[in-house]
Amino acid sequence: MHERYFEDWNVDDRVETGSIELTRDAALDFARGYDPQPFHLDDAAAERSFFGKLAASGWQTASLAMRLIVESGAFPRGGVIGLGIEQLRWLKPVYPGDTLRVSLRIASLRAMQNRESGIVRFENTTYNQHDDAVMTHVAIAMIPRRTTSTA
Amino acid sequence: MHERYFEDWNVDDRVETGSIELTRDAALDFARGYDPQPFHLDDAAAERSFFGKLAASGWQTASLAMRLIVESGAFPRGGVIGLGIEQLRWLKPVYPGDTLRVSLRIASLRAMQNRESGIVRFENTTYNQHDDAVMTHVAIAMIPRRTTSTA
Repeated sequence: MHERYFEDWNVDDRVETGSIELTRDAALDFARGYDPQPFHLDDAAAERSFFGKLAASGWQTASLAMRLIVESGAFPRGGVIGLGIEQLRWLKPVYPGDTLRVSLRIASLRAMQNRESGIVRFENTTYNQHDDAVMTHVAIAMIPRRTTSTA
Repeated sequence: MHERYFEDWNVDDRVETGSIELTRDAALDFARGYDPQPFHLDDAAAERSFFGKLAASGWQTASLAMRLIVESGAFPRGGVIGLGIEQLRWLKPVYPGDTLRVSLRIASLRAMQNRESGIVRFENTTYNQHDDAVMTHVAIAMIPRRTTSTA
């Protein structure tokens, strides 16, 4: 997708990202480094848990959603500065071998006076390969303007 | 810290986690896998950016906060099921070499009828080695009860 700067976006614009598989190796690596709970690390413990089998960390799902959004190419290649997250919900477990994609919608746009950026809020839904929504969240980010020639 | 089940917590209880360094290698690995923006990957690009030097992904800060909370041992070792996140704010950049710790406060507790868990909301502040707050967020999680002998 063509990269779009702040002034190129409108409320209700949508972006569909590509997809990526969350592999077993990546799930275990992430769990060791960032979320070392038994149901993310150990098959036997996971079987006895709420999840029923080894499940990926919700933080990995959120981080992979970030990657999919970056790799969509919809935002300026120079980068987008994240300010915050609202209303993140992990709706369903993500299991190793699942393939994720993100659908995003621009919820609001706010220009910043005398700044080279604007603030965008966008609603994200992350789906698995069965088209089940596994996570929703609202991201708040600063997106650069195309024209950075402000005084 | 001794592990505490749902019924062991009270509103306003606090936990101070240990600390961990976010190394340059870990920052680059995370950026490659989850947030491949130039200011997380490339020193020269980062120098020209908002951050002024290579900065860690905000999602890595959030994920390391999760690790610190798990490793605090304050919650049941069997694991805590994350339901969602509210009001996450990245307040200051985190740079490779920074050392992070988390201070958390129980904001609310809600028993679930006929369930083996309760729902806890806790407010987290992540600090760097200068005691600057770099991130705040509210986590919502299901925490098991000590007695799982419900009908």
